[in-house]
Amino acid sequence: MQAPYLLFLGDVEEFSAAKTAAGVNQWRRERVLAQHRLPGCTVDLGIAEMTPAEAARAGARTMIVGVVNVGGFIPEHWVATMVDALEQGLDLAAGMHQRLNDIPAIAEARDRTGRAVLDLRQPDRGFLPGSGRKRSGKRLLTVGTDCAVGKKYTALALEAGLRARGVDADFRATGQTGIMISGRGVAIDSVIADFISGAAEWLSPDAAPDHWDVIEGQGSLFHPAYAGVTLGLIHGSQPDALVVCHEPVRTHLLGFDYGVPDLRRCIDMNVAAAQLTNPEARVVGISVNTSRMEPAAIDAAIRDIEAQTGLPCSDPIRHGVDRILDVLLN
Amino acid sequence: MQAPYLLFLGDVEEFSAAKTAAGVNQWRRERVLAQHRLPGCTVDLGIAEMTPAEAARAGARTMIVGVVNVGGFIPEHWVATMVDALEQGLDLAAGMHQRLNDIPAIAEARDRTGRAVLDLRQPDRGFLPGSGRKRSGKRLLTVGTDCAVGKKYTALALEAGLRARGVDADFRATGQTGIMISGRGVAIDSVIADFISGAAEWLSPDAAPDHWDVIEGQGSLFHPAYAGVTLGLIHGSQPDALVVCHEPVRTHLLGFDYGVPDLRRCIDMNVAAAQLTNPEARVVGISVNTSRMEPAAIDAAIRDIEAQTGLPCSDPIRHGVDRILDVLLN
Repeated sequence: MQAPYLLFLGDVEEFSAAKTAAGVNQWRRERVLAQHRLPGCTVDLGIAEMTPAEAARAGARTMIVGVVNVGGFIPEHWVATMVDALEQGLDLAAGMHQRLNDIPAIAEARDRTGRAVLDLRQPDRGFLPGSGRKRSGKRLLTVGTDCAVGKKYTALALEAGLRARGVDADFRATGQTGIMISGRGVAIDSVIADFISGAAEWLSPDAAPDHWDVIEGQGSLFHPAYAGVTLGLIHGSQPDALVVCHEPVRTHLLGFDYGVPDLRRCIDMNVAAAQLTNPEARVVGISVNTSRMEPAAIDAAIRDIEAQTGLPCSDPIRHGVDRILDVLLN
Repeated sequence: MQAPYLLFLGDVEEFSAAKTAAGVNQWRRERVLAQHRLPGCTVDLGIAEMTPAEAARAGARTMIVGVVNVGGFIPEHWVATMVDALEQGLDLAAGMHQRLNDIPAIAEARDRTGRAVLDLRQPDRGFLPGSGRKRSGKRLLTVGTDCAVGKKYTALALEAGLRARGVDADFRATGQTGIMISGRGVAIDSVIADFISGAAEWLSPDAAPDHWDVIEGQGSLFHPAYAGVTLGLIHGSQPDALVVCHEPVRTHLLGFDYGVPDLRRCIDMNVAAAQLTNPEARVVGISVNTSRMEPAAIDAAIRDIEAQTGLPCSDPIRHGVDRILDVLLN
């Protein structure tokens, strides 16, 4: 994806629906030029507002469809804007389940303008089954007690923290928002089931001995729909270090009638799974998502989790990740 | 797939490469008419030998490509025989990774003759993510310490044994050979990763309270390449009962530099995984693959495993599955 970006928000009405655009804007602000919203959109990233034509004149190269919805489809009334972006000379990128390239009006405009239309959720290459072969370099994987608990955010914060300490580190994206932020990666939930761990192996290849790949986790080993993806990602990542992400006030898995697993049990299961391909795997910290907690309750919750686990706990947004990095690098 | 079948063996030289044809012939002999072998083929199923033309005259309806190879591709020198089968009026079915329908000469003959060309490994429908919703009826899943250890064979033997006792039971296929044997199912390793457990839910829908679905397992929770598929299949199957399949003389996973897991640990991990979606899940027996053991060593090995696990152990081929069924039905 060529920067600078125009972030398309459609007409979404909830901030969570714009999480892809928000993630790109938060973590790659230097590549973002402006946002473009349709009438009815009530989400605002607080950046410049431009139409595709204005953005193209200002130097934008790619319009990113920065929204998600249930089912991952492109509403029909968004298509004209996407065609307009191509006609203005912008490339177009999205991470929906529905492929932009399968929409006739967009495919026609793509062929007519010669612009690139990138469906980032669909792997653009095949994979092999995992080999289990030990690779050089070091790897950290974020795992969690549920989906949408902070695994991507934590991995990005750890990448930034490592680089700030002069450690060579790369964020490795495994979901569409992560791919848009880093510009590469593989949507691990979209590969063929046989190749989950093989795709994860491909994602973090052999590297220098002191290099850290910080791999974005997906799902949870305790999730009735997605645990298979999580387990294959763990085995293929063969992590030296795990950071467990957790939201203390969440009692049930998002959208499911299943309880959030006990944190201690979650740690043990993830370590057991990771030790299959890396006997040295260990948990180096707990990333605590306190975004929905009363400020007064946060310190006690953090202390409780530290006492329960014996590991450094922090909310990357409130506290940074320095204490986790201290354990990781020692 | 319409019977009777002509089983195409190509020019394979090892029995293991003909396992799909052998499985169909063993478990659905009443639907098999003959085999067809190319020059150089040294495998013989011990049944009638016919060309596609002879088979068509004798009433065959489908030629099944009954061989597997590394990579799952169709060798070019097999294509003429496949085209000939279509021209003789036979349908064509295969379970390779490479699609018959993607081979130009076969697609052309398909269109010209109007015959059906079935790529059984590719799901012919989409799936949803797993819901975790508890379904009616009862389910048994075979799991194992490795791939190719007897999970399909055990499930078929259990289906046959249940039916012999007057219990309503259905074998549910999760791999291409199983699909060819039962005529339906889903190649669970070929669905999109996000939908593994959803496909497994689809495979064994709500059923009568006393009905047993006997689900063919895949891979192993301890396999560095395929454990994700195994875990998603466990969660989506939500089995009431598990039978663990094991080969005592195997020390390493087939083709991998990983040890076979300890049987006790394998039992515990599978039960822990299954209890996420079915808290009643339990192991009801061990299926022991003794095909490569000295006859004199078998009894002692079985006794050892029974003492170690407290569960009935039997090789379905040598001993049948009655003792396992006694535990299952009580």
